[in-house]
Amino acid sequence: MTERSDSLDRFYSIIPAGGIGSRLWPLSRADAPKFLHDLTGSGSTLLRATWDRLAPIAGKDRVMVVTGRAHRAAVEAQLPDLTDPNVVLESEPRESSAAIGLAAAILELREPGVIVGSFAADHVINDQRGFRRAVVDAVAAADAGYIATIGITPTEPAVGFGYIHCDGLLDISLAPGAMRADRFVEKPDLETATGYVDDGNYLWNGGMFIARADVLLQQLGESEPELLAGLRELAAAWDTPARGAVVDRVWPGLKKIAIDYTVAEPAARAGRLAVIPGHFDWDDVGDFAAIAKLHSGGRKSDLAILGENARVLADASSGVVISQTGRLISLIGVTDIVVVDTPDALLVTTSANAQRVKAVVDALKLSGSNDVL
Amino acid sequence: MTERSDSLDRFYSIIPAGGIGSRLWPLSRADAPKFLHDLTGSGSTLLRATWDRLAPIAGKDRVMVVTGRAHRAAVEAQLPDLTDPNVVLESEPRESSAAIGLAAAILELREPGVIVGSFAADHVINDQRGFRRAVVDAVAAADAGYIATIGITPTEPAVGFGYIHCDGLLDISLAPGAMRADRFVEKPDLETATGYVDDGNYLWNGGMFIARADVLLQQLGESEPELLAGLRELAAAWDTPARGAVVDRVWPGLKKIAIDYTVAEPAARAGRLAVIPGHFDWDDVGDFAAIAKLHSGGRKSDLAILGENARVLADASSGVVISQTGRLISLIGVTDIVVVDTPDALLVTTSANAQRVKAVVDALKLSGSNDVL
Repeated sequence: MTERSDSLDRFYSIIPAGGIGSRLWPLSRADAPKFLHDLTGSGSTLLRATWDRLAPIAGKDRVMVVTGRAHRAAVEAQLPDLTDPNVVLESEPRESSAAIGLAAAILELREPGVIVGSFAADHVINDQRGFRRAVVDAVAAADAGYIATIGITPTEPAVGFGYIHCDGLLDISLAPGAMRADRFVEKPDLETATGYVDDGNYLWNGGMFIARADVLLQQLGESEPELLAGLRELAAAWDTPARGAVVDRVWPGLKKIAIDYTVAEPAARAGRLAVIPGHFDWDDVGDFAAIAKLHSGGRKSDLAILGENARVLADASSGVVISQTGRLISLIGVTDIVVVDTPDALLVTTSANAQRVKAVVDALKLSGSNDVL
Repeated sequence: MTERSDSLDRFYSIIPAGGIGSRLWPLSRADAPKFLHDLTGSGSTLLRATWDRLAPIAGKDRVMVVTGRAHRAAVEAQLPDLTDPNVVLESEPRESSAAIGLAAAILELREPGVIVGSFAADHVINDQRGFRRAVVDAVAAADAGYIATIGITPTEPAVGFGYIHCDGLLDISLAPGAMRADRFVEKPDLETATGYVDDGNYLWNGGMFIARADVLLQQLGESEPELLAGLRELAAAWDTPARGAVVDRVWPGLKKIAIDYTVAEPAARAGRLAVIPGHFDWDDVGDFAAIAKLHSGGRKSDLAILGENARVLADASSGVVISQTGRLISLIGVTDIVVVDTPDALLVTTSANAQRVKAVVDALKLSGSNDVL
């Protein structure tokens, strides 16, 4: 049995920084994705806050970021301590299995036995100690051969998150709280979500995966052998002069598929998925309703205002205003409202309709309105 | 008794074009007042449409416009047939008694016995024949020595308009429908308004006043002798080289008071006010709810879109969008909404709150935010 501190020494964080965050349009765009925004009012972008959570766990030199070529400069500006070997640039987006799988394959070649953990670049967690405790346990479970995930203890019957069903303790000595996860469930309706919370065996799926790189890649290969072969070919060339040519040839052909389907769900079905209950605050800030909630502390009557030069005059109004323009924004008698004011696009909706924003983005794509996407 | 056609020959229209229209902020501004906007989608500004209604009645050379110096160029651009003698420029706004009274005094000096009619520059009337019929009757009543007004037959218990109470027919042979108006009432609540409509003796106050200039000035002088003296002094100098000096000396000291208080209400109390029931559509377009209604034809589910380069993507939304920026405006699930998008200010409210817009303008004034007023 490995000592706990040893396994943490072999830990390496991966931050896939790829998603645009369509439900946060017109704030999030192709050229200004969600992870490059400060949605909490903390002064840090979500990416920077993610880095600040992860860097202390295994060191600044043990955080790898996978992002698009177009975002390289912005990412490096946010993360001045990010070193070249820890930047993996995608020539085009190919979904999370390819992004995380490539990072894992590169790291496994560089450092056999490495334990990797993948954490979204655009989630919000304030309780760093609670987060770190869960990661330490997840690393221990990973060292024991499991694919580990961190499930967040629900504080309410949220309908915007997926859930993980837990089926008893796993009895991992260095991660005594680790439970067997036997299935994932998609975003439920309110009644179902209430049932989950009452049941007590459901945790929110935070989309964090921690595993030995070889274990993760093997699981991925069982689901998608061709994808794994491509990733191994890329990894073999990565630290050589052949990288560019191999990327150009192999990357565009990789299957686009979420890691949930290639790794997490198959591992759960096979009994190889350990879930660490995380006792910390967590939000994926998936839509404007989440931003409003984050800033109001749950008080329905509050109006949250985001934006450095925001100039808002509100009367009998609540919800959230996000201002990028410095224009005067006046609200009168609009409750639970969402106003997002950007130089070329304005969104007016309500928290209750926040999930429908993605449909607007889809409609804009269809109509060829790429100038505002 | 004068023949009807004779009295119409002596008719002269006055268009006071002064009010900003605070309830239509941020569309209406000090430098872009309501009368310079096309709020109907007709392609004409409200001022131009007012001119087009009045010019055919007594001729293009018999329409006088009273406006601020700052608006001279914009007014003349809208009204290319407006001649210099028909432009009365205010060095600063001093309310409707001064504006209309000065025009009347100038015209009475130029043409003793003239009958003047004052019509707001920013109201909407589509039925020109119905309007003309009422004006002709009002001119006849004016020729008989009355101060005449046109009251609009209510089509609903509107709470946004003032009302005129009628007290029986006056028996003016050339204006057989003319009734004695015995009092004005302010904007009522819904219950009171419903009572007015059921009663049948209440008409909407359209703010139109028609009278012999000498009669109007005498009534004004009974209420405000100093104001009348000032107006007469200005009028005497108007068509002489002394105009500038007299304006500079006299105009700034004139009392600011609405003509309702100096002429209409005293005339009603004295039994000198004749009201002609007008059977035509009329709206003072006093707020954004009125604009929404004007464009929806009363259908609550409609979304009215104003603005030449408006680019709107709406889903399950209703109300009115006014766009001056060409930015993409996306609405999702907001009903009865009012969105006014201008280069430096954005308003989001609902039709139900439309009357509260003025309070925001007042707050902006108090806070010194003159850049957006």
